[in-house]
Amino acid sequence: MHKLSLLVDLYELTMSQAYLRYKRDSLATFDLFVRELPKARSYLIAAGLEDILGYIRGLRFNPADLAYLKSKKMFSGEFLAYLSRFKFRGDIWAVPEGTVVFANEPLIRVTAPIIQAQIIESFFLNTINLQTMIASKASRVAVAAGNRGVFDFSLRRTHGSEAGLKVARSAYIGGFDGTATVLAGRLYRIPIVGTMAHSFIMSFKSELDSFLAYADTFPGRTTLLVDTYAVRPGIENAVTIGLYLKKKGYRLQGIRLDSGDIVALSKLARRMLDKAGLGYVKIFASGNLDEFRIARLLDAGAAVDSFGVGTNMGTSIDAPCLDVIYKIAEVTDEEGNFLPTMKLSQGKVTYPGRKQIFRVEDKKGRFVRDILGLEKENIKGRPLLINVVKKGRVVYKPPPIGKIRSGLKHNLCRFPAQLFKVDPGFRYPVFISPQLKKMRQLLVNELRKRQ
Amino acid sequence: MHKLSLLVDLYELTMSQAYLRYKRDSLATFDLFVRELPKARSYLIAAGLEDILGYIRGLRFNPADLAYLKSKKMFSGEFLAYLSRFKFRGDIWAVPEGTVVFANEPLIRVTAPIIQAQIIESFFLNTINLQTMIASKASRVAVAAGNRGVFDFSLRRTHGSEAGLKVARSAYIGGFDGTATVLAGRLYRIPIVGTMAHSFIMSFKSELDSFLAYADTFPGRTTLLVDTYAVRPGIENAVTIGLYLKKKGYRLQGIRLDSGDIVALSKLARRMLDKAGLGYVKIFASGNLDEFRIARLLDAGAAVDSFGVGTNMGTSIDAPCLDVIYKIAEVTDEEGNFLPTMKLSQGKVTYPGRKQIFRVEDKKGRFVRDILGLEKENIKGRPLLINVVKKGRVVYKPPPIGKIRSGLKHNLCRFPAQLFKVDPGFRYPVFISPQLKKMRQLLVNELRKRQ
Repeated sequence: MHKLSLLVDLYELTMSQAYLRYKRDSLATFDLFVRELPKARSYLIAAGLEDILGYIRGLRFNPADLAYLKSKKMFSGEFLAYLSRFKFRGDIWAVPEGTVVFANEPLIRVTAPIIQAQIIESFFLNTINLQTMIASKASRVAVAAGNRGVFDFSLRRTHGSEAGLKVARSAYIGGFDGTATVLAGRLYRIPIVGTMAHSFIMSFKSELDSFLAYADTFPGRTTLLVDTYAVRPGIENAVTIGLYLKKKGYRLQGIRLDSGDIVALSKLARRMLDKAGLGYVKIFASGNLDEFRIARLLDAGAAVDSFGVGTNMGTSIDAPCLDVIYKIAEVTDEEGNFLPTMKLSQGKVTYPGRKQIFRVEDKKGRFVRDILGLEKENIKGRPLLINVVKKGRVVYKPPPIGKIRSGLKHNLCRFPAQLFKVDPGFRYPVFISPQLKKMRQLLVNELRKRQ
Repeated sequence: MHKLSLLVDLYELTMSQAYLRYKRDSLATFDLFVRELPKARSYLIAAGLEDILGYIRGLRFNPADLAYLKSKKMFSGEFLAYLSRFKFRGDIWAVPEGTVVFANEPLIRVTAPIIQAQIIESFFLNTINLQTMIASKASRVAVAAGNRGVFDFSLRRTHGSEAGLKVARSAYIGGFDGTATVLAGRLYRIPIVGTMAHSFIMSFKSELDSFLAYADTFPGRTTLLVDTYAVRPGIENAVTIGLYLKKKGYRLQGIRLDSGDIVALSKLARRMLDKAGLGYVKIFASGNLDEFRIARLLDAGAAVDSFGVGTNMGTSIDAPCLDVIYKIAEVTDEEGNFLPTMKLSQGKVTYPGRKQIFRVEDKKGRFVRDILGLEKENIKGRPLLINVVKKGRVVYKPPPIGKIRSGLKHNLCRFPAQLFKVDPGFRYPVFISPQLKKMRQLLVNELRKRQ
């Protein structure tokens, strides 16, 4: 992987060259937020801030970057010299990773010289889009699974290597219990899990031979995949191995069902295992699972103890992107005063000014509504955006990932239960504050007049 | 980004430890293929081989990897010692990047010691899934756009940084003309393009001021975004700038429409520009485009010269994963003879043996069908799988990306036109050879008997 300073849309750089000429000293505030939630999402879980902070720390243009830009013959010497000295010097406010957020609420707010605020746009959107999308999808899956285990099996279908790692991390934040991706386990210190593949079984003369070989290699941690040929004989073979291990003083950890009618097969497996005195053997299900399917399986009484969830979570298959945008909300005039600004394009209206999210709770500590207001407004409610970068210096130390994950779990309980229905429809109330409403209306009138 | 040797599902390693104990000398052949095409795909464009070869070259387990694995207390000293000396020593056959492929056709075939063939599974699937998925989607978009330009605008919504780069590259292979992602331009030597964002316009007192500033900065390469406030006045301002540049001896390059009724607005813009003597100014459309929308726009007579296509292509939004799998097809017995093998799970049957794809053409050089057969079978037709790694050494030098792209363009014309309908339904004929059919039937019978 390469240094990511040039991971930027070309127009950020061309605009910046024009800014350098006309707006060298302008400051601007940008909001990064999701305009509309995907259909099957009632809430989002913010994720990606750690990478944002790492990017800000390392954002420099090296000689190879500059040589490439120069070769394009579109940038001025003045601009290239500016880039060679580039360092981000602005302020960034953000909601911590693992925060529940809703449509129109800024996940990140940047106030900086306009060039600097502009150049970081592509990376910010890219990072928050992936990680927030995945943490949000994973949270739904984890909620649907209740207190059963859920594990990330998605590496083979995530959008590349980096996505595989970030999916494992974001899913863990969202409530998953671990991942099959070894490197993610190492980098983020999250639990890793693994069973066996069909190929292992098929490489032996018989299923039983393969089960025996695995059990002898990992007597204390064997989960047997029972559907390579036919499931009932597969479970019978697993029972044989379970009894074999028992005799040697070990416990067969589990069996895995990866195809077929999971409800019926899991009940069958449970009965067969119990009858053989193997009540402690867990039943693990995988294969095309998501929150909808898990909810249906559990409603139908599937005897499943934990789930391996792959592609559908790792690609957020029903909503493989968020409507995440980065919009200018204010900019300084010649005297250095901040003036609110906004867009009027059809169906794409934004909110002006420097904003804050206020989360309001009742006396019992239950969250009842959010208010999107102006930063300086006097609103009762906990402000969610905190200062993470001050004059270019990172001033926020993220908690360890386990804390992020458990903090989220704790906070989820404080929201209305309707938020977590598998079929969403409930919209958590997010109000616009009176002052923000007023500012917006004045600005709409003014912009319409100017046109 | 980190060394990717541990970018592997944990079960690949646990199975490998059991293989080491029981099948140290076994060789196996695995096929990587797409079981079923997504609903809206009639063909796939193979991509990702370059990264596969880079991975094979660099696949080693370093001391940090080994220390992490040791810390998990599940691996034997013997296995960790094996990994410390690991080097891939097998053979790999693959279809070159930019090859048109269909369901069940192996994109990659690996014959290697079974441990080695197993350990590479996760990375191979991950890499081919992303890049083939994107090249295939991009090809549909490029075909829909006909001879108009199509550019990758997807960075902000791709699944992370690496995906942003790989999407730009895969889309270029699939027929795109360039990307907005600067780093992709630098790394893969593909053209980069850029216009301006709404924020640029909004940071100025008026749209006209912003247009003027940009035009003065890039007089020879200005494309003006005209929908920030209202489109008709936006186009009027663009005409003003077009005439201003003309007077100074420059040509306004284009205008960009990013929202609203693109058919009506593009026709309006074309008329207004032509009337002002600015017939050379191109009209660029963007905003939520894909092959379906582009086809509809062009059918309705939209006056668009080129398209910026983002999220829908960069996430392959209607099919954000492929049903790509990696299946064992043969394995050696104790005497070292290869025996075909296959899976019988419900609805997941595979083809055994060491296979080759034969592409059959008629006398005029038009492709008429593929035959999936056994490697040694005598079938008339060009074999598509070529030897890219021999005993662990990469023996294939991929052509430059421009050649891959133009080769694909040339080859596409040799397929039946129905393949390229935007609403797919046509299935290109892929036959199973008589010998492969026979081998499969014998094996099904044998496996059923064993059960």
